[in-house]
Amino acid sequence: MGQVRRTQEEVLDNITKAQQARRRHMTLKQDIITMSHGAGGKSSHELIEGLIRPILANPVLDSLDDAAVLPLSRFVSLGNGNLPELAFTTDSYTVSPVKFPGGNIGDLAVNGTVNDLAMSGARPIALSLGLILEEGLPVALLREVLESIAAHAKELGISIVTGDTKVVPRGKGDGLYINTAGIGIVERTWPMGQHLIQPGDKVLISGSVGDHGIAVMLRREGLEMESEVQSDTQSLYDLVHHLFVHISSAIHALKDPTRGGVATTLNEMAVSSDVAIKVYEDAVPVKESVRGACEILGLDPLTIANEGKMLVVVAKERAEEALSLMRQHPKGQDARIIGEVQEEPRGMVFLQTVLGGTRVLDMLVGDPLPRIC
Amino acid sequence: MGQVRRTQEEVLDNITKAQQARRRHMTLKQDIITMSHGAGGKSSHELIEGLIRPILANPVLDSLDDAAVLPLSRFVSLGNGNLPELAFTTDSYTVSPVKFPGGNIGDLAVNGTVNDLAMSGARPIALSLGLILEEGLPVALLREVLESIAAHAKELGISIVTGDTKVVPRGKGDGLYINTAGIGIVERTWPMGQHLIQPGDKVLISGSVGDHGIAVMLRREGLEMESEVQSDTQSLYDLVHHLFVHISSAIHALKDPTRGGVATTLNEMAVSSDVAIKVYEDAVPVKESVRGACEILGLDPLTIANEGKMLVVVAKERAEEALSLMRQHPKGQDARIIGEVQEEPRGMVFLQTVLGGTRVLDMLVGDPLPRIC
Repeated sequence: MGQVRRTQEEVLDNITKAQQARRRHMTLKQDIITMSHGAGGKSSHELIEGLIRPILANPVLDSLDDAAVLPLSRFVSLGNGNLPELAFTTDSYTVSPVKFPGGNIGDLAVNGTVNDLAMSGARPIALSLGLILEEGLPVALLREVLESIAAHAKELGISIVTGDTKVVPRGKGDGLYINTAGIGIVERTWPMGQHLIQPGDKVLISGSVGDHGIAVMLRREGLEMESEVQSDTQSLYDLVHHLFVHISSAIHALKDPTRGGVATTLNEMAVSSDVAIKVYEDAVPVKESVRGACEILGLDPLTIANEGKMLVVVAKERAEEALSLMRQHPKGQDARIIGEVQEEPRGMVFLQTVLGGTRVLDMLVGDPLPRIC
Repeated sequence: MGQVRRTQEEVLDNITKAQQARRRHMTLKQDIITMSHGAGGKSSHELIEGLIRPILANPVLDSLDDAAVLPLSRFVSLGNGNLPELAFTTDSYTVSPVKFPGGNIGDLAVNGTVNDLAMSGARPIALSLGLILEEGLPVALLREVLESIAAHAKELGISIVTGDTKVVPRGKGDGLYINTAGIGIVERTWPMGQHLIQPGDKVLISGSVGDHGIAVMLRREGLEMESEVQSDTQSLYDLVHHLFVHISSAIHALKDPTRGGVATTLNEMAVSSDVAIKVYEDAVPVKESVRGACEILGLDPLTIANEGKMLVVVAKERAEEALSLMRQHPKGQDARIIGEVQEEPRGMVFLQTVLGGTRVLDMLVGDPLPRIC
């Protein structure tokens, strides 16, 4: 049963039903905004599905993927069918502290935006940079962040082509906030998205989980582990491109599990595609230092943000090939197959535990790690 | 002399010299960020030219216009020369208060981004929306702002296609900050930009100046005038399009004089094109209520932000035609010719006063009206 590929129509019909069901259940209960509305988990979804999306409703925004895909032919009539599709994405960064082991808010912004484009199958071509500076910010810190942005953009061969700078009074910001938006050219030629995963598909992760969130948390709280935890912030475009060249249309979905971690991302996929996802707990790579910090802090590594890892959902028969391709690449050396897609129970993610039992793996609830990106 | 159109090479040579000269003189003197670095005037230029631009340097960013122009043919090889140019722009909005007579932060963001695209000769096709919410923000206020964004976008026939929401703790924000980035398709087919104005050109403004800044200021300070001052926030795309249809290549530059007002915008043009601009003081339209408020507050209407007006620099022989075209349009009813471009003194703007004298009209210095957009 799981092997039978549903027709595109069946898939779309199921998606519509699943989306409608989800939206019926999403209402924003609170009257004021709380920190957990920004954590990427359940409350964030309530805010987005219960307020923002219904008000701004349009078909592109409704697709829920990392970047919007805009077929240029819809906007330009040039008498030929050769116009590319654009990908367009935005992210604001409010991470505290601004500098942390392995990176700072600047490279986080560049990598994060590039990754959103890469996850939608696009090659990044240009970034914008919006700075909100707090009065009193040391210029030396701003310089360091800008140099980091410039260095990362250069390495990726893209430019910051447009920008804006605002200053807010002391006590109305926190050093600096950054917004980056990005434009890419869609390179994939097959349908791909979190709403298109299929029973039977395998779920791969490109490396260890939880590094970024724990690195920021430990620095912010002034805690030290025996071995320092480094953020995994990095661009994933080259890894995606490497996969695309070799297995292309067998890839059904790509997603970087940032805020809310792997647990939240897989839940979004399960709901969007109206399927179940089983995760093999002992297959998920977690560094010893991260596991130790999670135990001390009472956190689940599967709900912690990553900034340089990706989940790849791929057709079962190409899963081993995808795995070895990822392992060939420096950014996928620790890749693993961590789960599979099933028919039932629809819209759910569950963990097959080390001891052989199963438990439901929910989205992140609350905000155990505020302001990690 | 002023009538002789310089060759493109001469113009570009002059621009390079002027830009180099300007950059040599721009260094960031302060060690910390102050409110005036965000005011759009001299300090903002020092921050941008003395720090941000040198670090992020690239040819597109260096063009200094409202939006970056990206020829798609540079990024896609499709074997034909029919690819359009994209315009790309970003702006953050930190206006205080969030609601003011005539608008709120939401329509300000949509109109502002659409106007940046329109000023570069582009038709807006898609917007992004990045929200930075402060913990404790009333959901009712957020709803009102979002509804305003949706209504304005709908009126303009464009969609918010991608978004991001972050929440910062109480005391690290101020209600809400918005970033919008926008993509447009360049419609003009001739060179246009603030570096391309020519001695002999005429300078037109589409309507009264200072409305937005004064409306926000009066509301923030709880001051009331006999007749309420309304912000002029509005989209200018339709007005630009109307002009383009009729006089096209006679338009040498378009710019909406936002932060820093008409004075700052004209100074940027004078430096970029290495020319002088004379402004006829008595020709500048200023509403009575705005003039009154400026007198009380000791402000110059020419340095106050506008959010729904544009400066048009047009070849002398088409200036009267441009003026009547603008006056035909509801958004240009109060248009006037307010000045002219001269050879000397290069890089300067000066005012021909009502009493017949002249005085230098400098860029905005300091930050008399913080957080107006």
